[in-house]
Amino acid sequence: MKTLKDVGEHNAIAALTANLKAVGDDCAVLPLDAHYDLVLTSDPLIQGVHFTPGTAPEAIGWKAAARVLSDFAAMGADPQYLLINLVAPPDEDFQTLEKIYAGVSNVRKLFNVDLVGGDLAQGPVLELHVFGVGRVPKGKALFRSGAHPGDIVYVTGPLGGSFESGKHLNFMPRIKEAKWLRQSGFVRAMMDISDGLATDLRHILKASKVGAALDSAAIPKVKTLEQALFDGEDFELLFTVHADEADQFDFQCLEDLDQQFPRIGKITGQPETLTLDGAILNRKAFEHFR
Amino acid sequence: MKTLKDVGEHNAIAALTANLKAVGDDCAVLPLDAHYDLVLTSDPLIQGVHFTPGTAPEAIGWKAAARVLSDFAAMGADPQYLLINLVAPPDEDFQTLEKIYAGVSNVRKLFNVDLVGGDLAQGPVLELHVFGVGRVPKGKALFRSGAHPGDIVYVTGPLGGSFESGKHLNFMPRIKEAKWLRQSGFVRAMMDISDGLATDLRHILKASKVGAALDSAAIPKVKTLEQALFDGEDFELLFTVHADEADQFDFQCLEDLDQQFPRIGKITGQPETLTLDGAILNRKAFEHFR
Repeated sequence: MKTLKDVGEHNAIAALTANLKAVGDDCAVLPLDAHYDLVLTSDPLIQGVHFTPGTAPEAIGWKAAARVLSDFAAMGADPQYLLINLVAPPDEDFQTLEKIYAGVSNVRKLFNVDLVGGDLAQGPVLELHVFGVGRVPKGKALFRSGAHPGDIVYVTGPLGGSFESGKHLNFMPRIKEAKWLRQSGFVRAMMDISDGLATDLRHILKASKVGAALDSAAIPKVKTLEQALFDGEDFELLFTVHADEADQFDFQCLEDLDQQFPRIGKITGQPETLTLDGAILNRKAFEHFR
Repeated sequence: MKTLKDVGEHNAIAALTANLKAVGDDCAVLPLDAHYDLVLTSDPLIQGVHFTPGTAPEAIGWKAAARVLSDFAAMGADPQYLLINLVAPPDEDFQTLEKIYAGVSNVRKLFNVDLVGGDLAQGPVLELHVFGVGRVPKGKALFRSGAHPGDIVYVTGPLGGSFESGKHLNFMPRIKEAKWLRQSGFVRAMMDISDGLATDLRHILKASKVGAALDSAAIPKVKTLEQALFDGEDFELLFTVHADEADQFDFQCLEDLDQQFPRIGKITGQPETLTLDGAILNRKAFEHFR
């Protein structure tokens, strides 16, 4: 018998969805009408995997909703509606559930998103399954597949140590930055960093059939380089800009956002080859189930 | 401490969503564009609650997807896209997961719905959280709130014994019938029967601020009246038609569908009062968590 652990999470998703409509980016983008594309995503948040029994319930609610919003940011899309399936043991304190919903509401209010449905079911541990619905101007969604050799690689903020610092529970989804980045017209490929820079950048390399060369000194680190490369749940945005437009892009960022994003490397022509300071980077981050 | 069990499922949903956008029908219906409304829903399917460890995996997949489609049928809406969060223990047989997805695919193909996303996560028991996105012509969705005193109450098929017969695993969502019912223009209120006729009819009575008088002889039963009233997971449609139009409706059903639906009772003016053969019916069906 081959178990889920034997197969591994990414392989399992790939195998199980092989006959289905293409899945691969942070959200599914589908035709809606003459002006907009429909954008859909879903994220599970499970006790013992994504949070511990000791996690503050408001933080659980915040994280569950903010992760879905980060998926929308990854595509440059605008989230509109959330639905939440809440799973809880029958002996769960009802006040805990109220606090979880209060955490969701904090995200909702800040980003003007409506909670419009969902369900409540009995199960062995606390879980939230959050579904998000939104839209993006037709043809303007940003995908992992848009990177080209020569592009400059950017990241929106410092990476690593998210579990130690608690950022994985209270991070701010980069909705505002994402909208500006999409509207700026400079960005060619984008995604959010949930599994760590090294792992997630490889998703862009695979989808775009390119390589990347990272500059260790340029990567913004919370603490160590190791953590910045391999820790997960940073929820910063990773994106590329045409090299010829990078100076103009940096200028525009300063003008409009009062900040600039660090350039951490370059896209190369070697398919799926990731280097750090010129040396091949092979180590993979932790994968669920393995 | 007040636990979820103390509060009860329906009360808990009501309390937790009190401050949020109105929830109450089988799907959320939201403005989309000039021609259509957007229709959204989500349903959990959890081992030990909605199926047993011995349930055939294809049947698990079928039920998970078919329940969501039944929610669309309840509104007279057309389902378009599904997303699935699959939760599984790391030692789950991978072949089981493949068979679950095959079951989902059987529903997808039959009803021309695309699976466009989802996620896979580790958890203590097997769970599917299915999220559905669809649409309905603007203003044409059928709600629980549309029943009026004098309306005739109809049901699309025989009720009860769904757990014994296995119908709860292999039922056919009433998408085809629902579309015809919506297009016919005769139907005033509609929902699907998931918690049993007595419980679900009470949802229509509450939403419409009316009562109902059921005729026990007229209720189509798989076996006993008791089961037809109180068993759950029939996934037939429950709807009302203006009394003056009922004969024309019956005729049109025969013409277009080659069948007629049984008239099982009448809507009355006594708010939230349900009677059976003239006697008040108080007993409530099984409620999760209680």
